[in-house]
Amino acid sequence: MPERITLYASQICPYAHRVDITLKESGLEYKRFEIDLFAKPDWYASKINLASKVPAIAYGGPDVEPDSPSPESIKLAESYILQEFIADLVPKLLPSDPVARHKARFFVDTFSTKYTGPWAGALLRGEDPIAALLPAIEALQNLLPAEGYAVGEWSIADAAVTPHLARTMLVLKYDLGAYDEEPGKRLYEILTKDEKFARFRKYFDNVTSREAFKSTWDEEPMRKGFYNHLKNHRSDRLAKFKGSAAAST
Amino acid sequence: MPERITLYASQICPYAHRVDITLKESGLEYKRFEIDLFAKPDWYASKINLASKVPAIAYGGPDVEPDSPSPESIKLAESYILQEFIADLVPKLLPSDPVARHKARFFVDTFSTKYTGPWAGALLRGEDPIAALLPAIEALQNLLPAEGYAVGEWSIADAAVTPHLARTMLVLKYDLGAYDEEPGKRLYEILTKDEKFARFRKYFDNVTSREAFKSTWDEEPMRKGFYNHLKNHRSDRLAKFKGSAAAST
Ligand SMILES: N[C@@H](CCC(=O)N[C@@H](CS)C(=O)NCC(=O)O)C(=O)O
Ligand SMILES: N[C@@H](CCC(=O)N[C@@H](CS)C(=O)NCC(=O)O)C(=O)O
Repeated sequence: MPERITLYASQICPYAHRVDITLKESGLEYKRFEIDLFAKPDWYASKINLASKVPAIAYGGPDVEPDSPSPESIKLAESYILQEFIADLVPKLLPSDPVARHKARFFVDTFSTKYTGPWAGALLRGEDPIAALLPAIEALQNLLPAEGYAVGEWSIADAAVTPHLARTMLVLKYDLGAYDEEPGKRLYEILTKDEKFARFRKYFDNVTSREAFKSTWDEEPMRKGFYNHLKNHRSDRLAKFKGSAAAST
Repeated sequence: MPERITLYASQICPYAHRVDITLKESGLEYKRFEIDLFAKPDWYASKINLASKVPAIAYGGPDVEPDSPSPESIKLAESYILQEFIADLVPKLLPSDPVARHKARFFVDTFSTKYTGPWAGALLRGEDPIAALLPAIEALQNLLPAEGYAVGEWSIADAAVTPHLARTMLVLKYDLGAYDEEPGKRLYEILTKDEKFARFRKYFDNVTSREAFKSTWDEEPMRKGFYNHLKNHRSDRLAKFKGSAAAST
């Protein structure tokens, strides 16, 4: 019988979002506590996660307020292995067949090694977004079955990639990254229109249509969050920024 | 009921060694086929692993010679998730409690993010081995329980770190890396004698005393393998090398 769960997360963080989606899909009850990454509470590192990152879970222990964590709960971290933890509590979140489980993990591994680093390079350091992301998206697309999710039924493999993909599409759409405007727009065109990425688009629609995604995603604050975040990373790029997020922040 | 397993591995490769140890501990029958990384058979990339890396597993299908793989077997790759795959087939290789499973995976995650990159930097690119490895070894040591293995009983978490640790100790002992001689010798002294690393030493003794390790480890060829491998990475450093491996190759 699963114990009490408190998730520490931040809206902007794709890694935290993985766990939020997974918990929603699990049907488990949990409390969610928002950590402001730009003003972390002083108890967070010492009482929840020494690495001072989100996501983290406090598991078990007495019923306390999330901002007064109990020493009796077990503190767990690292997004993908938190997803595996939740799937160990609620087995429907990952297939039971060993080969299908390997397929799910291989999909996540491919994403982790090919997507997250290059994406950060484009988003934060202004590297060419097309060179960064198209090979990774093609690799993921090639692993997808003809229909449905990464391994057929929805699984934690889908939750592992959806948060980054949704942020990528939002950032590209509103031209929010540190990369140059022109290749960013071109990449958005390719991903939304090119026949070659039809399977990827269908997949993206499928994963973002799920209730667990929709109830944990709020486009407008995310857009403002990225706008504010990027200030620190490329001021000249931001001078060009004309979107409504800029107007309202 | 698990199906036929063929493991493609290379003696020198720590990632392949993880899977070899895990299969030995599993008690499953398997064939092991040695891939010479410096002369890979031409069928390997096309028929076993597109990424052209070891380890890989051919799972199921008819009983064929490993060098004539059947298209009917399923080809699986990536060392850690191969270990999870084997633990899905033989559950005793990982505890069943979700919190203990998270602990095992967190240990491996800590190792993967803190150890493997810096170790490659010291071994191949001559970076300071003390700065590279001591923080990682301390982090691992801090995660160990007072006694026994990473999560008490032996598990795939132990198989995930043992191959790199054994290679590190061998390379340090015989001064085989691209890093400078003096800090390499000092690191070896620290790891073998300093009171601070007593728990690490005990752990290292425990994991390398297991039959599954001993039957998959042969020090002399490994030493020669590293010697030959390093030729490509630091010729001036090798000019200093005086060990018996040098004499006999
Ligand atoms: N490998 C970690 C990465 C988590 C991570 O990088 N979180 C970021 C936010 S997206 C964080 O908390 N950074 C610390 C900070 O901003 O101070 C995981 O998968 O959970
Ligand atoms: N992430 C992979 C890494 C495997 C890997 O890097 N293997 C090396 C040997 S240790 C390899 O096969 N390299 C290809 C080559 O040498 O051509 C895993 O964990 O299985």
